[in-house]
Amino acid sequence: MPKLYVALIHYPVVDKNGDTIASAVTNLDLHDISRAAKTYGLESFYVVTPLEDQKKLVARIISHWTDGIGGAYNPKRRSALELIHIKNSFAEVLSHIAEVENDDPISIATSARSYPTSIGYDSCRSLLNNGKPYVLALGTAWGLAEDFISKTDYVLEPIAGIADYNHLSVRSAAGIILDRLLR
Amino acid sequence: MPKLYVALIHYPVVDKNGDTIASAVTNLDLHDISRAAKTYGLESFYVVTPLEDQKKLVARIISHWTDGIGGAYNPKRRSALELIHIKNSFAEVLSHIAEVENDDPISIATSARSYPTSIGYDSCRSLLNNGKPYVLALGTAWGLAEDFISKTDYVLEPIAGIADYNHLSVRSAAGIILDRLLR
Repeated sequence: MPKLYVALIHYPVVDKNGDTIASAVTNLDLHDISRAAKTYGLESFYVVTPLEDQKKLVARIISHWTDGIGGAYNPKRRSALELIHIKNSFAEVLSHIAEVENDDPISIATSARSYPTSIGYDSCRSLLNNGKPYVLALGTAWGLAEDFISKTDYVLEPIAGIADYNHLSVRSAAGIILDRLLR
Repeated sequence: MPKLYVALIHYPVVDKNGDTIASAVTNLDLHDISRAAKTYGLESFYVVTPLEDQKKLVARIISHWTDGIGGAYNPKRRSALELIHIKNSFAEVLSHIAEVENDDPISIATSARSYPTSIGYDSCRSLLNNGKPYVLALGTAWGLAEDFISKTDYVLEPIAGIADYNHLSVRSAAGIILDRLLR
């Protein structure tokens, strides 16, 4: 059983012009990606933002579906959203996984672009079976900043459909990537 | 090249208690599923609702991203949302495809449950190569009504992850299904 974690990055990501920004949290990202993570047997889903108000927002959404009326109303959502850990930075994610696994995780960036260091899905599936912990970084807004990507161990190749169009939402991309890697 | 269409059904679907309802349209369903449809080379994405206010809402969202400032701001969203056709019923979807393709489409329901008539992804991929037009029906809310499912030609087997949890959003499910069938 692969030790795979997912981190949704709100900083550092780029905007439409390629400038590095901290993006706002999207409610349905939390729901969709935690449900996909639960479906594919992941233990944790990290939501990364350094912004205090955004961390509070995430905590409030989780709490609504785990503690309150929402948790009683829809236990399936609760068990998915319970996977979420809020972290200030990707460095904190790496430390947390290292602590849980007692082993340093290997980081894999995702991007809609190819890099010289990009690896395919079959290679990535093989890697995941070597017993090490791995963490997939998913970018919000217009994607992960180049500086972030350059520091990760691997970059996963873009999801190529069958058309010359490559602009999936991060919610769709997360589901497809988990399915390709863990199905 | 398979002739595959997707229809997002807002009626007849079931609520939490299994009662048949007409669900409300979710903005991000339109964005995510049209972007996935565009990525996998589909020609059309049908949004099905009999409710006048919901049809107006869908038309307004599409128009924002295709005609107005939104279209100029983000042409990638425009080219995805342009795939959307609004229809009153699944029967209207079938008629429209029959007209476009000059051939009656074969309907495939999707469900988080298995049916005696469920077919797997490999079988479905084979079917898609027989030159006939196909339409995948995706349910909103708690899924397609039984009565609807019983009238379709096939039911696609549920997306099984690796955990005992099977509650993906329709947005995630749409992406994964298209990837499995058309990748």
